[in-house]
Amino acid sequence: MDAGAPSEGWPLDDRGVAYGDGLFETVLVRDGAPRLWEYHLARLARGCRVLGIPMPAEHELERPLAQAGEGVMVLKLIVTRGSGGRGYAPPAAPAPRLRWQLSPLVPDAARWKVGVRVRHCRLRLGLQPALAGLKHLNRLENVLARGEWSEADIAEGLLCDGEERLVEATCMNLFWQRGGRLETPRLDRCGVAGTLRAVLLERLPIAEVDAAPGVLAVAEAVWLGNSVQGLWPVARLDGAGGEALQRWTIGAVHRRLQAVAHEPLGYPTRLDD
Amino acid sequence: MDAGAPSEGWPLDDRGVAYGDGLFETVLVRDGAPRLWEYHLARLARGCRVLGIPMPAEHELERPLAQAGEGVMVLKLIVTRGSGGRGYAPPAAPAPRLRWQLSPLVPDAARWKVGVRVRHCRLRLGLQPALAGLKHLNRLENVLARGEWSEADIAEGLLCDGEERLVEATCMNLFWQRGGRLETPRLDRCGVAGTLRAVLLERLPIAEVDAAPGVLAVAEAVWLGNSVQGLWPVARLDGAGGEALQRWTIGAVHRRLQAVAHEPLGYPTRLDD
Repeated sequence: MDAGAPSEGWPLDDRGVAYGDGLFETVLVRDGAPRLWEYHLARLARGCRVLGIPMPAEHELERPLAQAGEGVMVLKLIVTRGSGGRGYAPPAAPAPRLRWQLSPLVPDAARWKVGVRVRHCRLRLGLQPALAGLKHLNRLENVLARGEWSEADIAEGLLCDGEERLVEATCMNLFWQRGGRLETPRLDRCGVAGTLRAVLLERLPIAEVDAAPGVLAVAEAVWLGNSVQGLWPVARLDGAGGEALQRWTIGAVHRRLQAVAHEPLGYPTRLDD
Repeated sequence: MDAGAPSEGWPLDDRGVAYGDGLFETVLVRDGAPRLWEYHLARLARGCRVLGIPMPAEHELERPLAQAGEGVMVLKLIVTRGSGGRGYAPPAAPAPRLRWQLSPLVPDAARWKVGVRVRHCRLRLGLQPALAGLKHLNRLENVLARGEWSEADIAEGLLCDGEERLVEATCMNLFWQRGGRLETPRLDRCGVAGTLRAVLLERLPIAEVDAAPGVLAVAEAVWLGNSVQGLWPVARLDGAGGEALQRWTIGAVHRRLQAVAHEPLGYPTRLDD
């Protein structure tokens, strides 16, 4: 394991840049303590297992936390298969490489309170069950999708897969309630299985479903969330062409799920006070 | 454009490693002169256009050639979107980064002469028309597929897409002849459109087709090729479980396509002498 200093970059022959051959995690850190740490470790371990990359030791992954100091930070960890030969064949004995960045975070409280405006993306996610759910470094689909809009007041873009099922947003998971039931898309064909999503699935009866985007037209409430930003109620949904499709009034239904999501993150759980 | 020295690696915040947000080319260089250079430039330019990355100037891309010296080398060029913010949103004014590596190459003449053994891969390529044909840095599918075998005498693995159509091999394009007609898979849903493939499509009547793997059972000849290795006749095809599926006797039909492919690369065109 090459766990270089944070200022060090990547050697020319690292497979992270050559092939996106690695994984990452972005972790909310509050006063030096990581939130949902066990969930991040579990997802990283699963990714390492699937890709055949040795999982870094926990103490290596925790080392940056000593430098986090007070306040709210984001720790980004990147693990690659390390330097590696010529060609796609993974080295028989890979020496993984770990790098990290710590950045201060000021979450946008207005997004929690009044909700966000989102739009549908034109891009469709390809189906790749072998990589589904992992937070791997092959993220060109996300980059292309996020490049579809530049309006500052559009917080996120919703993504469907190539068979017109809802999957996620560009960097958040998607949840909705219809007929009193909480639902979220299945992520076994594409998408990133977020750690906040994992927590919510454990704590609440949320069904993982296949759903066309039309399901949102009959939803009482829609949310987007991840372990860094917390949970945003969706107040307005636009189509991929920018046309307004739907609006929701943010109310008690939204607040209940936010309370459950924000508790483990240390974010406000009573947002109407 | 940051065109650092070849010994320099990648900064910590480069989007190439963060997201695979970039492109690459591997170019055969003979006595300092690149082969199929216009085709490599054209593919790179197309990739830059699709991803919204400014295309590096030709003189920047050509600079490494001065160091190639005599003999046969491979030049690997990587262009990334450069350093970039936090999150997937591409910077409004990206400063692309170019790095390169030159390595000596000794092509394996036996593969040209007696042909190669290949096998079917289990992995299926996801369909992503937005990225199809590009030589981008999101190559985990290729890494996983290439990891399916380690036998030294298996030269390549054939890949189908998620709808069971033949696409390519892990780092080569695929060609076959049936009923006297030359064919190669369409690459508008996934796969990398090789520069040698582009040359062959220009010089010969080769049909781009949708075909299930069963087509190979009725093929008179099968080849794999790229602009670095030239064209390999396939002598034996195994299934994904390792079982022998099919054998071909290498003959005049194979040699004809090899002659057309090898001429622009400077490789032998008369392989039976």
